[in-house]
Amino acid sequence: MDVTKIKNPRFLKNMSTKQLIELSANIRKFLIEKLSKTGGHIGPNLGVVELTIALHKEFDSPKDKLIWDVGHQSYVHKILTGRAAEFDTLRQYKGLSGFPKRSESEHDVWETGHSSTSLSAAMGMAIARDLKGTDEYIVPIIGDGALTGGMALEALNHIGHEKKDIIVVLNDNEMSIAPNVGALHNVLGRLRTAGKYQWVKDELELLLKRIPAVGGKLAATAERIKDSLKYLLVSGVFFEELGFTYLGPVDGHNFDDLLENLRYAKKTKGPVLLHVITKKGKGYSPAENDKVGTWHGTGPYKIETGDFLKPVETAPSWSELVSETVRKLARTDKRIVAITPAMPVGSKLEGFASEFPDRMFDVGIAEQHATTLAAGLATQGMKPFLAIYSTFLQRAYDQVVHDVCRQNLNVFFAIDRAGLVGADGETHQGVFDIAFLRHIPNLVIMMPKDENEGQHMVYTAIQYDDGPIALRFPRGNGLGVKLDEEFKEIPIGTWEVLREGSDLAILTFGTTISMALEAAEKLAKEKVSVKVVNARFIKPMDEKMLHDLLESNMPILTIEEAVLQGGFGSAVLEFAHDHGYHQAVINRMGIPDRFIEHGSVKELLNEIGLTASHIIERVKTIIPKKQKRA
Amino acid sequence: MDVTKIKNPRFLKNMSTKQLIELSANIRKFLIEKLSKTGGHIGPNLGVVELTIALHKEFDSPKDKLIWDVGHQSYVHKILTGRAAEFDTLRQYKGLSGFPKRSESEHDVWETGHSSTSLSAAMGMAIARDLKGTDEYIVPIIGDGALTGGMALEALNHIGHEKKDIIVVLNDNEMSIAPNVGALHNVLGRLRTAGKYQWVKDELELLLKRIPAVGGKLAATAERIKDSLKYLLVSGVFFEELGFTYLGPVDGHNFDDLLENLRYAKKTKGPVLLHVITKKGKGYSPAENDKVGTWHGTGPYKIETGDFLKPVETAPSWSELVSETVRKLARTDKRIVAITPAMPVGSKLEGFASEFPDRMFDVGIAEQHATTLAAGLATQGMKPFLAIYSTFLQRAYDQVVHDVCRQNLNVFFAIDRAGLVGADGETHQGVFDIAFLRHIPNLVIMMPKDENEGQHMVYTAIQYDDGPIALRFPRGNGLGVKLDEEFKEIPIGTWEVLREGSDLAILTFGTTISMALEAAEKLAKEKVSVKVVNARFIKPMDEKMLHDLLESNMPILTIEEAVLQGGFGSAVLEFAHDHGYHQAVINRMGIPDRFIEHGSVKELLNEIGLTASHIIERVKTIIPKKQKRA
Repeated sequence: MDVTKIKNPRFLKNMSTKQLIELSANIRKFLIEKLSKTGGHIGPNLGVVELTIALHKEFDSPKDKLIWDVGHQSYVHKILTGRAAEFDTLRQYKGLSGFPKRSESEHDVWETGHSSTSLSAAMGMAIARDLKGTDEYIVPIIGDGALTGGMALEALNHIGHEKKDIIVVLNDNEMSIAPNVGALHNVLGRLRTAGKYQWVKDELELLLKRIPAVGGKLAATAERIKDSLKYLLVSGVFFEELGFTYLGPVDGHNFDDLLENLRYAKKTKGPVLLHVITKKGKGYSPAENDKVGTWHGTGPYKIETGDFLKPVETAPSWSELVSETVRKLARTDKRIVAITPAMPVGSKLEGFASEFPDRMFDVGIAEQHATTLAAGLATQGMKPFLAIYSTFLQRAYDQVVHDVCRQNLNVFFAIDRAGLVGADGETHQGVFDIAFLRHIPNLVIMMPKDENEGQHMVYTAIQYDDGPIALRFPRGNGLGVKLDEEFKEIPIGTWEVLREGSDLAILTFGTTISMALEAAEKLAKEKVSVKVVNARFIKPMDEKMLHDLLESNMPILTIEEAVLQGGFGSAVLEFAHDHGYHQAVINRMGIPDRFIEHGSVKELLNEIGLTASHIIERVKTIIPKKQKRA
Repeated sequence: MDVTKIKNPRFLKNMSTKQLIELSANIRKFLIEKLSKTGGHIGPNLGVVELTIALHKEFDSPKDKLIWDVGHQSYVHKILTGRAAEFDTLRQYKGLSGFPKRSESEHDVWETGHSSTSLSAAMGMAIARDLKGTDEYIVPIIGDGALTGGMALEALNHIGHEKKDIIVVLNDNEMSIAPNVGALHNVLGRLRTAGKYQWVKDELELLLKRIPAVGGKLAATAERIKDSLKYLLVSGVFFEELGFTYLGPVDGHNFDDLLENLRYAKKTKGPVLLHVITKKGKGYSPAENDKVGTWHGTGPYKIETGDFLKPVETAPSWSELVSETVRKLARTDKRIVAITPAMPVGSKLEGFASEFPDRMFDVGIAEQHATTLAAGLATQGMKPFLAIYSTFLQRAYDQVVHDVCRQNLNVFFAIDRAGLVGADGETHQGVFDIAFLRHIPNLVIMMPKDENEGQHMVYTAIQYDDGPIALRFPRGNGLGVKLDEEFKEIPIGTWEVLREGSDLAILTFGTTISMALEAAEKLAKEKVSVKVVNARFIKPMDEKMLHDLLESNMPILTIEEAVLQGGFGSAVLEFAHDHGYHQAVINRMGIPDRFIEHGSVKELLNEIGLTASHIIERVKTIIPKKQKRA
């Protein structure tokens, strides 16, 4: 069948298993083809083709609520709910979102992007249902990776306690983005390998043999602990202990198994955990054989070979620059320990991990723990390097405040994907970090203009021993500048004049520097003389330079690829007025007070008015009647 | 013995059980007496007298690391580490902190205040230890309440996976602040009641009877689930599944039991969970018999009767005003559901809970889940009322951004303890919320000048259906103003002129309004005419009034009991410059860029310069040469 003709999932109700299998093949073919052109989360979606079909066959969306945790695995759901025809625009500007979106479809009942939220949302919907007396099913679909996020465990605890009717589908593919870690993962591993029923008999014999050996009080405790009794009832006891009915494990690519268990789950009172085993990338061998997470989310690729089409980048990615610089420094600085919350590939930590396996900790999707872990390390004189995306650091705001900055500990935050991230859209834009970090006492925040300054900032961060320090850097590749052979420390709180000028001073940092320089260049031709300052320390700022600038009475324009409220520009305003420069003409450019959707970074910057031309335009409104210079 | 003579815990090493019991009695007597005068966390500390003594006897602090989760139960630890003589100053300005403090003692290796951080810190210390090759014991002491916080579960997952040598002491008193909730609590409950070894034999018989009944595939699954097999190995299997050696349950008031188990734990490789049962308030009957949490933290009391000495407040507390107003509205508005993360007493939700037991959810210490749960409810047309302290809302920053505000859901955040909180000190000051909330799109933030405006704001928040809305209010009691009988809606984004004036305009809100009015009154006598505006909406601001003010060229002074960076004053600066009022003289008063320690709110305000006299002084510097008016 032509999947672009699907209007809603009702057609599934009367389909035979054979037809469902055919449909799966069609959807896989469609996904492989479409994503080969647009890129997207191919691996996770190929893994849930049968599961999504089975869910839509058994449940009655949108009355029944399907809640996709993380949400990048919702493509099949989008196809089945009438959006296949829009897949050419996937993750593109004004196109189909890569995540569930309530404005796109009534079948998208909950928007996701960050992980581990689905169970809390489901619990909210279940409470609402029971108060209103309706009878819809509530079905969060959560991956084994997302389950390690603290808030998912908070929710399991609450759901199990309240005994609400919720069917939690655990989509267990043994990976989140990278292979999963954590004790909970081991629990799932035992469930997967336990076999289903045979173990009861086999292990029982073992149990019987061991019982008589119980001796003295502590000996008995020890015995109980060390022996394998715990494996006896391992199938789901973890979840059952929390108050769930455990069903599974179910073959997530077998319709009969899936549908039978879903039907059973519907009949079961109280919370159910349905453990479904899927294979990420199923049906497309390059993705299926992926062991590290390369095929989690990709750009365009050649279908036949699985080769990525993206032009080879000449400059290293920012993540690579930062991680590899830390790796170099770690060779002589034994204090350095790297931490990632489930992003070893994205943060380009493979090199560090292979060279220093004992000093690298992937803690799973657990940003809060990652941050306080870093604080704990720092209390013992270590130098933790926490590689974390800007958007995910949001999860650890309290830990940054309460555990790291309040205790003034030497934690090095490497804030990746700061600024607009593009295709992942509004849930992933790294635009809030300056506003949510700037007001925290003791924290240094910096952003480099290029890779060379970047490596020096990494060095500076590692040398810095007066408290926490954050280096923010953008998604993607550097500018391709040459790297100095020797590292040097950049004095904290110093800015750099990149271009002299006398009519107006632009204060900016990071990605927006190049547009400011371009604008200044063009304005020079119109005899407008613009000074451009690399305000590389967002906190503390260069107070001497600020005083000089403000005393000069030159108008100031601040530019940042970050939210305007409480951002860098506000810091400049605060400084000016706190120091009595009430006449200062200060203008700000940055990201306005709304969530920014997906699209290429270029398109988004254009939409919000953050380009060289917008800067030129803005400068001209500030200096409206610029006369020809003498 | 005189506990004020204790210098360090080494004296414990040679003490007999009898001597330890005597010491416990002395410490209890000391605590009951001292806290009757100063107030403090009496219940939690009386519960851990024996446990703390046993820990300091068995371990060698500060080489071995004792990490007190939450930390308000560290008084006995403070006594044993030489700080008893300072207890008269407990929680007072410049006095002994109510929490562990690294600057107070080398025995305080980790500072706490917010819950659930100890396991992550311990893991950091364990990694550091193993990399450095030292051999200290690392012993986090965490309550059963704190264990439900997501980050504690993230850490358990990581510790169990890495198999680090960490001895987790689970201090299980069946309460956090209020009685605990959650499925995990039920797990602990079963452990407590399981008895120790007898169950193995008893339940085994049951198991054997049941095995033959296993039939068809799903029938077997169902059978396995519904029967009580899961109880068979219930003793610690939850923790063992996560990779811990489970020891216990241990009587936390019996030295022999405690010491024997601690010694055994020291010999055990890998992570250990030592389950210790304690009684909150042990040894002081008013505290011991407390069922709801009144004796968790108290003011001064009369020892003999357990009566609290605090003068009866004539005005209701802010928490009570807000919760009781919501309760009234809930009688006709069925959409209202109340949520608290473990603070039903602090948030004065007892009345709501008793009247609407089905619409009140205490989710335990789980602020992230609480927030996203509220979002889930809002998607279904409910009106969640999330009662949360400002400092604890920090834990849910990402959920506020990603789940509530991004989806623009009708969640009502009642932000309690906003501003300085006093004796609890720097971990609990509610001073960051404006700075971390103001930049989030879609969120309305307001603060009332008095209880009457407060009740109208509650009403306004409940009526408001355009997205999330936050009402912040201070700790403590209202002003005692009369409440209108009829609720009225306050138009969103409107301010109110409280006093006209022509020389300078003060823009302020909440607690600082009274000082501004007092200052204006006094300044009037010196012929300085100060306008005072109740800037009750922090976002959105009253743009019309701002335009009028800025056009008038009157100097502006913003005052807020909140951090200055990115705060309300910055919002005024942003507005002025964004609208071209570059000549505006804007001054800001608020909380400077450092963490504020404990003390009475009055003392702290005086220290940071936020009093009527400071305002007068500041106004005079802004209008330095005020001439007598015509």
